[in-house]
Amino acid sequence: MKLAEVANRLSCTLEGDGNIEIHGVATLEDACAGQLSFLTNVKYHNEAKKTLASALIVDSQSPSFGKAVLRHHNPYLIFAKSLNLFYPAMPLSPSIHPSALIASTTTLGEGVSIGAYTVIGERVSLGNRVVIESNCVIQEGVHLGDDTQIHSGSVIGKGSIIGRHCVIQSNSVIGSDGFGYAKNDDGSWYKIRQTGIVILEDEVEVGANTTIDRATLGETRICKGVKIDNLVQIGHGALINQHSLICAQVGMAGSTTIGKNVILAGQVGVAGHLTIGDNVVATPQTGIANSVAANQIISGAPSMDHKIWMKSSSVITRLPELLKTLRRIEKRVAQIEQTSQVKL
Amino acid sequence: MKLAEVANRLSCTLEGDGNIEIHGVATLEDACAGQLSFLTNVKYHNEAKKTLASALIVDSQSPSFGKAVLRHHNPYLIFAKSLNLFYPAMPLSPSIHPSALIASTTTLGEGVSIGAYTVIGERVSLGNRVVIESNCVIQEGVHLGDDTQIHSGSVIGKGSIIGRHCVIQSNSVIGSDGFGYAKNDDGSWYKIRQTGIVILEDEVEVGANTTIDRATLGETRICKGVKIDNLVQIGHGALINQHSLICAQVGMAGSTTIGKNVILAGQVGVAGHLTIGDNVVATPQTGIANSVAANQIISGAPSMDHKIWMKSSSVITRLPELLKTLRRIEKRVAQIEQTSQVKL
Amino acid sequence: MKLAEVANRLSCTLEGDGNIEIHGVATLEDACAGQLSFLTNVKYHNEAKKTLASALIVDSQSPSFGKAVLRHHNPYLIFAKSLNLFYPAMPLSPSIHPSALIASTTTLGEGVSIGAYTVIGERVSLGNRVVIESNCVIQEGVHLGDDTQIHSGSVIGKGSIIGRHCVIQSNSVIGSDGFGYAKNDDGSWYKIRQTGIVILEDEVEVGANTTIDRATLGETRICKGVKIDNLVQIGHGALINQHSLICAQVGMAGSTTIGKNVILAGQVGVAGHLTIGDNVVATPQTGIANSVAANQIISGAPSMDHKIWMKSSSVITRLPELLKTLRRIEKRVAQIEQTSQVKL
Repeated sequence: MKLAEVANRLSCTLEGDGNIEIHGVATLEDACAGQLSFLTNVKYHNEAKKTLASALIVDSQSPSFGKAVLRHHNPYLIFAKSLNLFYPAMPLSPSIHPSALIASTTTLGEGVSIGAYTVIGERVSLGNRVVIESNCVIQEGVHLGDDTQIHSGSVIGKGSIIGRHCVIQSNSVIGSDGFGYAKNDDGSWYKIRQTGIVILEDEVEVGANTTIDRATLGETRICKGVKIDNLVQIGHGALINQHSLICAQVGMAGSTTIGKNVILAGQVGVAGHLTIGDNVVATPQTGIANSVAANQIISGAPSMDHKIWMKSSSVITRLPELLKTLRRIEKRVAQIEQTSQVKL
Repeated sequence: MKLAEVANRLSCTLEGDGNIEIHGVATLEDACAGQLSFLTNVKYHNEAKKTLASALIVDSQSPSFGKAVLRHHNPYLIFAKSLNLFYPAMPLSPSIHPSALIASTTTLGEGVSIGAYTVIGERVSLGNRVVIESNCVIQEGVHLGDDTQIHSGSVIGKGSIIGRHCVIQSNSVIGSDGFGYAKNDDGSWYKIRQTGIVILEDEVEVGANTTIDRATLGETRICKGVKIDNLVQIGHGALINQHSLICAQVGMAGSTTIGKNVILAGQVGVAGHLTIGDNVVATPQTGIANSVAANQIISGAPSMDHKIWMKSSSVITRLPELLKTLRRIEKRVAQIEQTSQVKL
Repeated sequence: MKLAEVANRLSCTLEGDGNIEIHGVATLEDACAGQLSFLTNVKYHNEAKKTLASALIVDSQSPSFGKAVLRHHNPYLIFAKSLNLFYPAMPLSPSIHPSALIASTTTLGEGVSIGAYTVIGERVSLGNRVVIESNCVIQEGVHLGDDTQIHSGSVIGKGSIIGRHCVIQSNSVIGSDGFGYAKNDDGSWYKIRQTGIVILEDEVEVGANTTIDRATLGETRICKGVKIDNLVQIGHGALINQHSLICAQVGMAGSTTIGKNVILAGQVGVAGHLTIGDNVVATPQTGIANSVAANQIISGAPSMDHKIWMKSSSVITRLPELLKTLRRIEKRVAQIEQTSQVKL
């Protein structure tokens, strides 16, 4: 595809030779002639100077490095779109494998695909163009909206409601029982029946081997556009608002509400019954034990303002030295006091 | 059901109108007229004042908020029991799906249910009323006790012994190989054959996508009544004693012994070859590197007494200020010393 | 087997009666007469004195505790080899279950075993003696090298290349989509197509319920001999060099390079786009936010030199006391200054 057409299709401003033939996308380091690359951070200027790419996607201020460039105020988004342009998803011809077991009360939209050995329970409804890969279990009463994809080996528990354009990666479990037990007088645990469901709104994506528990009562709800990575635990009764990002191995205990546009980085832990405000960013491994107001960047365990944590954690390595200094000063002050008493 | 009957069935003391008709259970916030709710913590008094519930489960000291109440010293337990009363598990008519593959040497108790595409190996024995959902793999020589349930997609490895009334949620793996390697002289790793098994005693519950490794030699044992949440890792040769709770994403390295009634909160890590005493509680993300005596509440990484950790961690945010103060005092002491030398 | 033969087969030096009949291997504590045990750490001398084992594997310097001993400079390796000697893996007679679905364009080596309800896509190539257990999904274009084993329920994503003598434990996912989104101007997330693949070189082992993401562009590569435990997350575009050990619940963000012979202990987190040098050891729960030079032992979050962390973390419990001391000294210094002003 000629660069001018690429610019046109990606709605970028072209600077340079629009006749260059582009046949793929690669990183600055790996790109070869005829490929398009991208620069989204000034710290990669050195790589940009050396790249063999024939053209670059850059932001509004960036130099062009002697290359033809596609300018856009959001070059990372344009990079993402260029991948779909050059490596489009292969069109799937819809098919239902004869070994798929589909209950008679299940309703299927148009163009549904179901893989081998997938088991679909009673009263399930599948929207148009739903794709369910092999070896999945879709339990009774589940709803999957149009264009939603369930990858191999995932289990969608009873009554779960999943919106349109959702993706569940392989071996995830939506609708496992929440972890709730009441203590019997003899110290043993009495299981609390988990009567609720899980709701995923439209455009929610869930990684591989992630677990989202059904609510004890009511619902666990993941709102529109939320993206969840691999090996994440979402406790019963949680609510995650629109467009939040939940990175790998995050754990959220039950009944916690996460605001809109929140980012929880990898391995963050969030206690139960908290409210995390909109736009909060928690850096990796943050331990959130209390509710957090909107618009904070937080770090550490227990979590604190990120800037304070940066300063505090830099002092931590110097604690032994600090302790020594304190002991030395203590001794000197005692000497001064003694001398003063004598002398004054 | 009339409230008087609810009180009777749940063995509570009724205060107020026993003729109120109750048709369900809900939280204080969500309850509407005709529903039963519950109050287990004084911090929810405000919600209790505003609830639309027609009756409340409360403890022995609680006010009644102008409602009919069911009193019990353990209201959370009564709430749990009320869920079973109003939302009983649907009776399952036992059936073995024709696509389930069951080895000829396997023995089945009465009333066993086996889902579609589940594979059961040689010499497996299944107790009465065992339920194995779809797409599970039960490997050779496994024993499952009466009334045990294995949810969809779980894999129970060779020779595992699982007691009665156990529940394994979906996509968990019981009996994966322990992580053991000996170093060859050339720096490569030689796999240590994991010859042992996993034993789950009666009433053990295991969450979704959890892994419990088989022992190198002997057994990994989870004792009676232990409850394990999602995405937990239990290393080879571990022993978890009765009625302990292991919350989501906890990781235990090999050969560690956990006492009775221990609670490990979410994302706790426990090193190998340790002994954690009875009744220990570790708060979320605690990193346990050494054995812990009984009856401690511990926090932090490395773990310490919870109260000390509360105080210490509150100081951490003030470390930069503390360092500045120290430097300032150091300077003032030096000045005093200099002045003294001159003056005295 | 006579001890002399055991010594011979394991290439150890025999000290003591070679005629002792050995019939198994056990730990010092569990061993009974006729069993071989092993001592790899001086801290177990007490157990060694009390063991009922008939013979011990020990290192070059160890006392013999009045037993026949097998000496070797690497007794842990000899222990590992003894397990294979006494508990050899049962030879598997290769078989392909009739319910396995194998695409017509797939090629199979000799002696391949495929379990029930496993689904194998188009253009897959399987080496000799490959074992794929039940309920697995091997997607199109995957290559599995000779003697590689895929345990039950695992999903190997499109185009993954897995070398020889690899083992993937149950319910793992190789080739899930990397977690990559570009922000749209309206705050929603645009999925970045993950066009790359996962490559596992020879002798790589992967635990249960672990996820290894495919690269956005290019490859995620796990080099020869790397061993990965359960519930580990490997981000897109990661590179792990030879013979590194990645313990349970470690999370690595995208595009990070791990050197050779690195050990990441349990629950370690590694941020994206970093380089961790050869031979680095990170203790449990270490949070690695910056690149690490070779040959370091690191701990803490943010990570620091392990020895400094040991000292610093021991001060942390004393922070409240330290703060009090500081306040007290501050007051005394102020008093001295006041007195001095008056008196001097």
